[in-house]
Amino acid sequence: MLGSTGSIGTQTLQIAEEFPEQFKVVSLTAGRNLTLLIEQIKKHSPEVVALAEECLVQELQERLDNINPSEKPKKFPKLFGGPEGLNIAASWDHSDLVVTGIVGCAGLLPTLAAIKAGKDIALANKETLIAAGPVVLPELKKSGSRLLPADSEHSAIFQCLQGTPWAENARLSTGVPTPGLRNIQLTASGGAFRDWSIDELRNASVKDATSHPNWSMGKKITVDSATLMNKGLEVIEAHYLFGLNYNHIEIVIHPQSIIHSMIELGDSSVLAQMGWPDMKLPILYAMSWPNRIETPWKRLSLPEIGSLTFKSPDTAKYPCMELAYSAGRSGGTMPAVLNAANEEAVAQFLKEKIHFLSIPKIIESVCEQHKNDLNQNPKLNDVIAVDEWARRVVRENVLTNANRYSMANTAE
Amino acid sequence: MLGSTGSIGTQTLQIAEEFPEQFKVVSLTAGRNLTLLIEQIKKHSPEVVALAEECLVQELQERLDNINPSEKPKKFPKLFGGPEGLNIAASWDHSDLVVTGIVGCAGLLPTLAAIKAGKDIALANKETLIAAGPVVLPELKKSGSRLLPADSEHSAIFQCLQGTPWAENARLSTGVPTPGLRNIQLTASGGAFRDWSIDELRNASVKDATSHPNWSMGKKITVDSATLMNKGLEVIEAHYLFGLNYNHIEIVIHPQSIIHSMIELGDSSVLAQMGWPDMKLPILYAMSWPNRIETPWKRLSLPEIGSLTFKSPDTAKYPCMELAYSAGRSGGTMPAVLNAANEEAVAQFLKEKIHFLSIPKIIESVCEQHKNDLNQNPKLNDVIAVDEWARRVVRENVLTNANRYSMANTAE
Repeated sequence: MLGSTGSIGTQTLQIAEEFPEQFKVVSLTAGRNLTLLIEQIKKHSPEVVALAEECLVQELQERLDNINPSEKPKKFPKLFGGPEGLNIAASWDHSDLVVTGIVGCAGLLPTLAAIKAGKDIALANKETLIAAGPVVLPELKKSGSRLLPADSEHSAIFQCLQGTPWAENARLSTGVPTPGLRNIQLTASGGAFRDWSIDELRNASVKDATSHPNWSMGKKITVDSATLMNKGLEVIEAHYLFGLNYNHIEIVIHPQSIIHSMIELGDSSVLAQMGWPDMKLPILYAMSWPNRIETPWKRLSLPEIGSLTFKSPDTAKYPCMELAYSAGRSGGTMPAVLNAANEEAVAQFLKEKIHFLSIPKIIESVCEQHKNDLNQNPKLNDVIAVDEWARRVVRENVLTNANRYSMANTAE
Repeated sequence: MLGSTGSIGTQTLQIAEEFPEQFKVVSLTAGRNLTLLIEQIKKHSPEVVALAEECLVQELQERLDNINPSEKPKKFPKLFGGPEGLNIAASWDHSDLVVTGIVGCAGLLPTLAAIKAGKDIALANKETLIAAGPVVLPELKKSGSRLLPADSEHSAIFQCLQGTPWAENARLSTGVPTPGLRNIQLTASGGAFRDWSIDELRNASVKDATSHPNWSMGKKITVDSATLMNKGLEVIEAHYLFGLNYNHIEIVIHPQSIIHSMIELGDSSVLAQMGWPDMKLPILYAMSWPNRIETPWKRLSLPEIGSLTFKSPDTAKYPCMELAYSAGRSGGTMPAVLNAANEEAVAQFLKEKIHFLSIPKIIESVCEQHKNDLNQNPKLNDVIAVDEWARRVVRENVLTNANRYSMANTAE
């Protein structure tokens, strides 16, 4: 489990706890939340634990040594730290499947280490494909490791695809076009501002943007959901996962988040996967695929919900969506630039340095400055370099144009 | 094609015409519509044609002989008539797949002939399983022939099931329980009276009952849709097709008929198949399975539809639904009795001999009179005998109680 103390990590470990016959946790990596990590070690007795920051390893060791004897795990894990430590945990011999729950580009290196070690990947880290798709896909082919989407939308597509001739032949996510798959429709809740007009968005506060109507998620992702950048990034991810041209990946606003996404097959039949908005189901499916595990989870009831609604997204209201399509079509390192610029712009918004409506403007400006032509077949170093470059440009841009982008400037 | 001039037959032949690379029509059977049949012969040049009524064969021969030379088919078909003739056409050597579009028990014998000859069956004749499930299932096992549902709801279930472990192992519809399949949800439009109260139903006329809001179908089926007997019969069919206990087959009212049915898997994930209400898609899928054929048919657009709604069916308003569950659970020849009593009661209603609300009362009374215990493992003769018995009882019942059941008696 890469990123065991985050949102995906805690839910994955809950699943492992709920189904002990099926899953055994052998390896954990975490950031700074040692208190939660120690609880997880007590409960799951992993063989190995790695911390992103090497300097915290000694503190973890001491706190583990001082655990109350009655609470001690069955066995103490081997501890590692730093990037090399994360790679050791990610490619640990006794694991069959690596769940990648680390947010951002930090998840990239350990995910690549797991792929090189031939592990199957339950993919919850978006950057793996969005920023590094052109780097990761060839590695998958080399090692034979498989990408199993663990987020709600791509899992829905993946579940629907199981019965297609494509699934028969490949059952892999390797960017190869899917015969007979005509279209993908990713559903979007519309986020916190789905009922706001563009005019009203001029007054959007951080608090407004971080209140998601359906899903319980981190702040950054909740803002992405309000700008629909979330969905734009998923479009790029779907392109790499399922090999479809961007013209065949659509977004549909579906406020109830019950249909998690759909596929349209060549004969015009549409298959949809549905469920309550709960990340546990797609995580479990990635962990149990190609099988399904019997759960006692709350059954979906459409009569209880009553009505499912749909509309086409408003491109004027959600400029981030078009920025993502455009970056995806541009290819190379452009999606990495888009993703990094977005992360940094959202961070600046959460610090109240910029206005909500400035997020797409800043991203667009950074993408325009990026010379993508040089990078159509990027290496990992190129991806990391443009990622750092884009973040820096956003920060400088915000400093230089503080007034223009500020929260107070609602005239923009 | 069994029943080439009916609703399923004409649509199947349209598909064969639209996709000449994929399909070749080699055998037709029909009832009395010789004019349409001759057009079909001209267009498709089948190798064999059989008429249900032997006495019409000579007339057909003469009319074929007199076809304008410029319109002649490439080759004239061999002609047969009567039950034996239908069996010859149904088991014709050069066919791989038999589409069964004959309505009612008349379809039973030729369908059995096709099964015994090892043909795959695109099943649109409900009686094959509803009345004769206990007879047909062992024959399927013996011959290895496969039932591919060609009606909208069971095709939806079948499409959703393709990606399950069940489909991997079996891919057949043989009444064997499907591992990991927790529930089936059949959607029902609610029929012509979905917005009527029980009180208002007292004034339901034949014209009211035969105006279906979504699907263009025959009169008998449109009335079945208004009573929800249609859906009750589909529940029984689903039981035999997918091997599920009746407690795990549910009905959901979904007025838009866009979701054609759903399956719920063991992990709580729900898969749904969607499309416009058009029989051509399920027929095509049964004909092309396990592949899908590229079509230029109108793409489904959920934003265009806007909203899909759902509610649980009202058991007081739709007593036929419960009658069907009860007959299904009773097993043996009870579903055959239910089906025959329903066909005859609806025929009496269409002749305005009985009131709409009398339909379930008559069926219930016939089912109560049937001694099912003697028939838990019926043979084909038993099925045919109870079918005839139930129809006779309905007719006698209507004659004897003309006043009680009459259209004028709205107090009942």
